[in-house]
Amino acid sequence: MRAAMFYGPGDLRVEEVPEPVPGPEQVKIKIAFNGICGSDLHEYYGAPMMTPVAAPHPLTGVQVPVILGHEAAGTVVEVGPDADEITEGDLVAIEPIVSCGSCPACASGAYNHCARMAFHGFSTTGGGLAEYTVVARKMAHVLPAGLTPHQAALVEPMAVAYHAVRRTEAGQGDLCVVFGAGPIGLGVMFALQALGASAIVVEPSEQRRAVAQKLGAAYVLDPGDGDVAASIQDITSGRGATACIDAAGVPSTLSDSLRSVMVEGRVVLVGVSMEPVPLMTPLLFMTEATVTASAAYRGDFPAVIESMRQGHYPLDGWISTIGLDHVVADGFEALRAGRATKILVSPS
Amino acid sequence: MRAAMFYGPGDLRVEEVPEPVPGPEQVKIKIAFNGICGSDLHEYYGAPMMTPVAAPHPLTGVQVPVILGHEAAGTVVEVGPDADEITEGDLVAIEPIVSCGSCPACASGAYNHCARMAFHGFSTTGGGLAEYTVVARKMAHVLPAGLTPHQAALVEPMAVAYHAVRRTEAGQGDLCVVFGAGPIGLGVMFALQALGASAIVVEPSEQRRAVAQKLGAAYVLDPGDGDVAASIQDITSGRGATACIDAAGVPSTLSDSLRSVMVEGRVVLVGVSMEPVPLMTPLLFMTEATVTASAAYRGDFPAVIESMRQGHYPLDGWISTIGLDHVVADGFEALRAGRATKILVSPS
Repeated sequence: MRAAMFYGPGDLRVEEVPEPVPGPEQVKIKIAFNGICGSDLHEYYGAPMMTPVAAPHPLTGVQVPVILGHEAAGTVVEVGPDADEITEGDLVAIEPIVSCGSCPACASGAYNHCARMAFHGFSTTGGGLAEYTVVARKMAHVLPAGLTPHQAALVEPMAVAYHAVRRTEAGQGDLCVVFGAGPIGLGVMFALQALGASAIVVEPSEQRRAVAQKLGAAYVLDPGDGDVAASIQDITSGRGATACIDAAGVPSTLSDSLRSVMVEGRVVLVGVSMEPVPLMTPLLFMTEATVTASAAYRGDFPAVIESMRQGHYPLDGWISTIGLDHVVADGFEALRAGRATKILVSPS
Repeated sequence: MRAAMFYGPGDLRVEEVPEPVPGPEQVKIKIAFNGICGSDLHEYYGAPMMTPVAAPHPLTGVQVPVILGHEAAGTVVEVGPDADEITEGDLVAIEPIVSCGSCPACASGAYNHCARMAFHGFSTTGGGLAEYTVVARKMAHVLPAGLTPHQAALVEPMAVAYHAVRRTEAGQGDLCVVFGAGPIGLGVMFALQALGASAIVVEPSEQRRAVAQKLGAAYVLDPGDGDVAASIQDITSGRGATACIDAAGVPSTLSDSLRSVMVEGRVVLVGVSMEPVPLMTPLLFMTEATVTASAAYRGDFPAVIESMRQGHYPLDGWISTIGLDHVVADGFEALRAGRATKILVSPS
């Protein structure tokens, strides 16, 4: 089969590799789409953090080259022994975290903090940028009838966003601020809407603001127009927003968030910054806000799938699809240049 | 009466001023003790933040000179009209926050975030470094029999510490880290103990470590001995502490806290840093810990008083008393030089 093999920064090759075979409690999936994520770009253009370049991965023993792609969805084509409650033909979204099951975090159920965590599509034997992949049965979430393969491939990034919203504890009637209207920012907005809350979207790109507005943002703000926090205080009559979610990954957003949030409100970071972010503690004292991060997801796939079924995840204006052969030129480069919001790769 | 009047940085004068008279819903208190706080030192040695030096206070209209002292306790000597459920002779602790009652924070009950907050002892007509003071009845918390004037004067700083512990949500059986064994750090330890939790105290001063150990610390660590976070991970078998409370106000403590805390643990800052504190966001993602601040108190006086009644606030080894006349030389200078932990001033 054809697969995009990651050898290291700047070196991704679409090659012919052996088709994987499902073992016990595993399923083989024909990939319909695999989304390209910012973290894929980070591996390719930056310093790899997810792929085992220098040494074998401590949990899986895998080292580059690896098949890239952790936002994968497709159809079950073969069911291994003892893989229950799943059938050939099922449309599935793959939850890519592979955890050790024995560290203190895993023991407490917090598998997204596993000390030796691997990721399907970064550090296991398979990934989504391939015609086929094999995963453990429990990593394959079966989608209900009516959902499409496009939606299935979005479950993973939407789960990242959903988890961030869960960490805000926002709910019915709350007004929250989303910094950034990329795929995660939009996903945060959809999750808020699914939970009965609404979003003030802060985004410098006029085109992305227009998409956010069309897809349901209560307010859209251009940070170039002036003091975002002052605008948010105006909108909320000086009460402040329930929560702020930073899906922009810009260090200055933290202070804007702390100036926008209500007493004991929540500021949740979804984007990791490699540089120290200056925390102005007087702003933290002003409201006793909490600042936290949202790390991937933990048990969020079913809620996202159910919210998709209810119609909370429209695809208009932010999704494009490409083939596998020119994934770097048509995919990575387009995203890096800001010419696309979310790109799904069809490997077949 | 004699009172310590603050005119501005470096200018505190013990002067003769008129004795205050209680109006409706007010009480007059003969001060037994008033503690000196780090924020008093900050006003005197640094750039005033609490005292209205340049312009009248927006809520009270008061401008310097003001009577300093916001950790006051004493005996009721006169009860104004309509001041209910209080009698001459009652021992009281003064809760010094004066809030506007009408801003969004006050409207939500969060009076410690009042947009125009004043403080008795910084920005009202009275303070605790005086023979007498007058406050609203509701600011005077009556202490039960058996508690001493020394303890009464400690209710305010102990409420600061208690509020910080409340913000950790720690309880029975939890092991938490306290950075700093000054008065607030010790207060945090006492509050943890009162709530059934226990404390790992991190403190560079050998003498303060000895006091903390004697007063109940489960562990004491010297940050000079090496990697504090590694020691805490050892103590907790890699699980991490439930919460970390920074009562040291050193910027590096934030990273130590994030490396010491469990998954979804809490890091609470009690000390304001005027400089930006570098937040290493990868550490925040590692555990999805929350970072927050604890601002003064809100409704914490009764719980502190009750915990004092139960015996959770021993005074051995960290309290000294002085007279009013040489409050700068015997009080401020001694604290600044680290020659005392907590100093209570007796104005009469």
